[in-house]
Amino acid sequence: MFSSLATIFDRLSHDPDVRVVLLSGAGDKAFSAGLDVSGAASSGPVGAPAETDDFARRAWKIRRHALAYQNAVNAIERCEKPVICLMHGISYGAAVDIATAADVRYCTEDVKLCVREIEVGLAPDVGTLSRMPKIGVSYSWAKEVIYSARVFGGQEAAQQGFVSRHFQDKESLLEGGLLLAKNIAIKSPVAVQSAKALWDFSRDHTVQDGLLYTAAWNGAMVQADDVKKAILSGIHKTKPTFGKL
Amino acid sequence: MFSSLATIFDRLSHDPDVRVVLLSGAGDKAFSAGLDVSGAASSGPVGAPAETDDFARRAWKIRRHALAYQNAVNAIERCEKPVICLMHGISYGAAVDIATAADVRYCTEDVKLCVREIEVGLAPDVGTLSRMPKIGVSYSWAKEVIYSARVFGGQEAAQQGFVSRHFQDKESLLEGGLLLAKNIAIKSPVAVQSAKALWDFSRDHTVQDGLLYTAAWNGAMVQADDVKKAILSGIHKTKPTFGKL
Amino acid sequence: MFSSLATIFDRLSHDPDVRVVLLSGAGDKAFSAGLDVSGAASSGPVGAPAETDDFARRAWKIRRHALAYQNAVNAIERCEKPVICLMHGISYGAAVDIATAADVRYCTEDVKLCVREIEVGLAPDVGTLSRMPKIGVSYSWAKEVIYSARVFGGQEAAQQGFVSRHFQDKESLLEGGLLLAKNIAIKSPVAVQSAKALWDFSRDHTVQDGLLYTAAWNGAMVQADDVKKAILSGIHKTKPTFGKL
Amino acid sequence: MFSSLATIFDRLSHDPDVRVVLLSGAGDKAFSAGLDVSGAASSGPVGAPAETDDFARRAWKIRRHALAYQNAVNAIERCEKPVICLMHGISYGAAVDIATAADVRYCTEDVKLCVREIEVGLAPDVGTLSRMPKIGVSYSWAKEVIYSARVFGGQEAAQQGFVSRHFQDKESLLEGGLLLAKNIAIKSPVAVQSAKALWDFSRDHTVQDGLLYTAAWNGAMVQADDVKKAILSGIHKTKPTFGKL
Amino acid sequence: MFSSLATIFDRLSHDPDVRVVLLSGAGDKAFSAGLDVSGAASSGPVGAPAETDDFARRAWKIRRHALAYQNAVNAIERCEKPVICLMHGISYGAAVDIATAADVRYCTEDVKLCVREIEVGLAPDVGTLSRMPKIGVSYSWAKEVIYSARVFGGQEAAQQGFVSRHFQDKESLLEGGLLLAKNIAIKSPVAVQSAKALWDFSRDHTVQDGLLYTAAWNGAMVQADDVKKAILSGIHKTKPTFGKL
Amino acid sequence: MFSSLATIFDRLSHDPDVRVVLLSGAGDKAFSAGLDVSGAASSGPVGAPAETDDFARRAWKIRRHALAYQNAVNAIERCEKPVICLMHGISYGAAVDIATAADVRYCTEDVKLCVREIEVGLAPDVGTLSRMPKIGVSYSWAKEVIYSARVFGGQEAAQQGFVSRHFQDKESLLEGGLLLAKNIAIKSPVAVQSAKALWDFSRDHTVQDGLLYTAAWNGAMVQADDVKKAILSGIHKTKPTFGKL
Repeated sequence: MFSSLATIFDRLSHDPDVRVVLLSGAGDKAFSAGLDVSGAASSGPVGAPAETDDFARRAWKIRRHALAYQNAVNAIERCEKPVICLMHGISYGAAVDIATAADVRYCTEDVKLCVREIEVGLAPDVGTLSRMPKIGVSYSWAKEVIYSARVFGGQEAAQQGFVSRHFQDKESLLEGGLLLAKNIAIKSPVAVQSAKALWDFSRDHTVQDGLLYTAAWNGAMVQADDVKKAILSGIHKTKPTFGKL
Repeated sequence: MFSSLATIFDRLSHDPDVRVVLLSGAGDKAFSAGLDVSGAASSGPVGAPAETDDFARRAWKIRRHALAYQNAVNAIERCEKPVICLMHGISYGAAVDIATAADVRYCTEDVKLCVREIEVGLAPDVGTLSRMPKIGVSYSWAKEVIYSARVFGGQEAAQQGFVSRHFQDKESLLEGGLLLAKNIAIKSPVAVQSAKALWDFSRDHTVQDGLLYTAAWNGAMVQADDVKKAILSGIHKTKPTFGKL
Repeated sequence: MFSSLATIFDRLSHDPDVRVVLLSGAGDKAFSAGLDVSGAASSGPVGAPAETDDFARRAWKIRRHALAYQNAVNAIERCEKPVICLMHGISYGAAVDIATAADVRYCTEDVKLCVREIEVGLAPDVGTLSRMPKIGVSYSWAKEVIYSARVFGGQEAAQQGFVSRHFQDKESLLEGGLLLAKNIAIKSPVAVQSAKALWDFSRDHTVQDGLLYTAAWNGAMVQADDVKKAILSGIHKTKPTFGKL
Repeated sequence: MFSSLATIFDRLSHDPDVRVVLLSGAGDKAFSAGLDVSGAASSGPVGAPAETDDFARRAWKIRRHALAYQNAVNAIERCEKPVICLMHGISYGAAVDIATAADVRYCTEDVKLCVREIEVGLAPDVGTLSRMPKIGVSYSWAKEVIYSARVFGGQEAAQQGFVSRHFQDKESLLEGGLLLAKNIAIKSPVAVQSAKALWDFSRDHTVQDGLLYTAAWNGAMVQADDVKKAILSGIHKTKPTFGKL
Repeated sequence: MFSSLATIFDRLSHDPDVRVVLLSGAGDKAFSAGLDVSGAASSGPVGAPAETDDFARRAWKIRRHALAYQNAVNAIERCEKPVICLMHGISYGAAVDIATAADVRYCTEDVKLCVREIEVGLAPDVGTLSRMPKIGVSYSWAKEVIYSARVFGGQEAAQQGFVSRHFQDKESLLEGGLLLAKNIAIKSPVAVQSAKALWDFSRDHTVQDGLLYTAAWNGAMVQADDVKKAILSGIHKTKPTFGKL
Repeated sequence: MFSSLATIFDRLSHDPDVRVVLLSGAGDKAFSAGLDVSGAASSGPVGAPAETDDFARRAWKIRRHALAYQNAVNAIERCEKPVICLMHGISYGAAVDIATAADVRYCTEDVKLCVREIEVGLAPDVGTLSRMPKIGVSYSWAKEVIYSARVFGGQEAAQQGFVSRHFQDKESLLEGGLLLAKNIAIKSPVAVQSAKALWDFSRDHTVQDGLLYTAAWNGAMVQADDVKKAILSGIHKTKPTFGKL
């Protein structure tokens, strides 16, 4: 599942027909119940028989493994198009790793969110611990839910800024997500995708570096036909149509 | 307007008679409606006739242009004195660039805030994308309003932490801003301006670097007469007056 | 007091019998009223007679002094175990330095929180200015309370995300803190302490660096007995007991 | 060629039978004459007809293209095994990009090294400008050869520290490379590959971060059987054989 | 002198008729004897009467002063065109600050180079201590000459990589500088100036950041007419002429 | 030995009677033969019986151990006074860790330098891999000697910039070291120690950050009596005596 996540998002990233991505869970019960930990623990580098490798070599392979999983989740962040993550039902462990890598997070009121890794004896290593300190939520709250692995719902998630909206049920969640997606899809893809790239760069750099990168970037992007189209549409009160990217 | 913004703030920065700056919009209608984009698009490097320069040279000049605009907004941040930004009415585009560069943001309840750049076909490049990820707002919310270019009001701005207070109307906004300004103006300018400098440095550095810079900085600043004055005033229950800076 | 703070937390950090630390103030009145500034101003490098040293040498010694104080507060952050800070009553100055270095912050409703340093003529230099920009609170709000040195209570602290919960009185605060502490203490210490270390590293680094460090770290930590224990307990519906660290 | 470079090095990176990689050019004339610029300029995103895309969209695609080329050269650096680059004859443009991504650089005396990109109207963008400032060569010398695109030989390259040795001819170059490779191949792969990973991390981070990462890394790696084997071999004066990785 | 340094270089930076800058000293005796320290010590913020300001306020003004001096020297680095610094005779203190901000350094054999600040009781603060650790010279050597404030000549400077060439006398120095300048001036200014910008960015960032910035930058710059001109000239064996920038 | 290294250097750092530190090896044979690896491997966390701890807990303790060793070597770098390291005879492993943490490195011609860790199955983790990439030596050369663990002498060390001078024998080495030490000891300690602090900060930061830190630092330090003393001495041709620090 994880490796196809990377394949799919890397394809969406360059597909000119895609302008925004909605990521939701199939069925009523869950967005994702997280990794099958007991499976992972009995196979893969962790579960491999101790005779084969010494401890260091096992650690080395586990590291390679973690990097591969991280790479899959990173695909959501490196996807050039904005990704809206819609969570409902059980949304444990990997669900949170995936959600924090998305641009916008929406959920239902009765979603069951949980950073569950500590419950199974390990620290999250697929993204939550690296991204959650950077998405504008209270550290005191985040560490509380991570250390205690407690479940939290949609209202708390919205109040803490983990999601920007919560909805009554899955149906209205999908509607809300679709509405936002449509709203984004009619915008200039050059502008939208530039904003994603520039925000994410700025997150990890000083304000000065963010500004410098933005100026270099926009030297080209401001020359898109989209700017003129948008201005003309504004003057003529028409709806502009922007070319693919 | 933009270049005089830099001139004014650079002067306020070193003017010993200034202790705090209040930035508000004239009139009832708007704090700022943003850049005159159609003007900018038909003049300047973007609007210059294509014959003159090849694409690369145009990009080069647009970059120089963006750096100049950024430099103007940066003047608010590099102003040694705290800047309180009071927003009312239409507060679009450049209004948000300016506000995010200020120290404290207040607004009216019916303010119309909007990161509007994507609506006109470009990604914000004068500060919003570089500073907003660093001012303690929810990323999910911020990306939603940026990608969709939707308008939000004072209540939402306060709830999301974009402003720290909202007021019923422009009059009470100015009163509230003035009250805070007076409260700051009676404090030691060495202490207040040091706090601004050290917070802004810390924002862009590791905690360890922030502490190191603070310790080097305060080696001199703790030797201000202000500390003794403040303590004596505390003992004698008098109001201290602090020298200019 | 400050130097014993470092000694105590450095000991707690490596003590295998400790799994989580609760930090609260004795008595009813205060968590901490901050440094005895008038004492500090008349002794130590600041108060030393001017004849002894020139200005530069005094600044040098004040810097050494500040680094020593910072080191004491840093002990809370570098403590391998999670630290829960419980604040009630007067919680001024150093109280906030200490609290921002903790992992989780709880307080009473009637707590009197105040970043008070500017009131006494100096910029905070023991941690508040370096850590508060990184704990997920609104910058506009934080700068307002720092520049004005105004007092804020438990409700405001919770609303702004400075604390994650507030309680009616000191008794319920201690109960709430203890409940969370117990909940953490029964988890795998390898997992909990790894989460603290990885979160704090990620705070100060890019997402990519955070992921890289996490993958290197977990190469070893995923091989703890705790993972198997936790999974087996999950299958057999028993409560696992995790070894010391 | 470039995309197979990535494929090959990514495979070598995890292949347990490989301990060190020697990279040299076939034939007598050249290590590499660089990219076929006239080919690249008439095909790919640069050469694509202007009608298809506006300038911004072309810039976007050129950026994607550059990232793909960079990714290919990065494969040399991210290859877990040390890479020794052996240069002879014409070694222009991409040759230098590739060489700077390797761990060790050797060359013949009559090698013709040249950072040639500026000669063809563009700034190097596949690695030279990002890596050369970090490999311990004089900036004054490097900028001189880059701006002027002048050719330099083996003696100058060695004197400036760009290569660590130069040899009389290609034959002795290969011998010298092979000798070093053999010397590395008999060492513990855990130790050798750790050293590469830790050096490269440290290059891009503060000394303090480098030390922190190293301590986390070696917690696992010091527990390799290799340490005991190496010590026993030292005592018994035997040659140890280390397991694959 | 210092403030006109900034004015001049900022003008050269955007002047389309300038392609490269040669910076040399008038007369036979000196490139620069450094700041007139005794003058600076009796005037300016350092020399101002103590009555006016307390120590903290004096420190504040000295800092503003230092930032202004630094800004002047920075103008050499932020000048978009490459700067070649030609040193002869006495080249003390500020001479080294200026030289380290240039792109290429040449000198005469009998130049008298000296980081002289420590001799007059202060640590260099106009650039040497911030730039010299980044120009590829041995730290052991650099700290030796800085701490001891000893004079070193052209041969030592070349051997240590501080300069890339040394010449017998001032005349041949100027000739050598002019030759390099001409060689650079006939190249594409888009390519040359891009290389300067990208190298300097990469110096201060990780390799990964350098590559990312380069890819964004070149999206526009590779579309310069210069690339086609250069390639055609290569095919037709003619000398291309590149447009201004 | 290692823990007393920290104690001694931390004391020297604040001792006002010390102005510069010379670090050399007793006896004729060795500066240091490195850690007693076979001892370390049979005791301490590495050698502890496997029953006591699982792999993860062992890794955790090895990490604590490495941090303690690193802290000891760091004491040389954090020592406020310049440290000159004089190497002769066997200088293996820890010798190089120690030397790279010093400010200036001198050695004898027949010194036997070796980064020996890989020979004993592990990657250096006490400083060499984190500091050597930052001291201005060729990466190609450094990686060659690290991967191969080969011995190199004084001439090669000097040519590569690892040391700044080499001497015929231990006696002349000590003389040379003493001469430099005396030269530094008569300088202003405010100036000398500031230079060390500012250089080391700049090494790990951008040029812009280095300049900013320097300006804040020198606000106080330029006000030392030393500047006036030095200038007066210059005018009166006398030798100044500078106060302790």
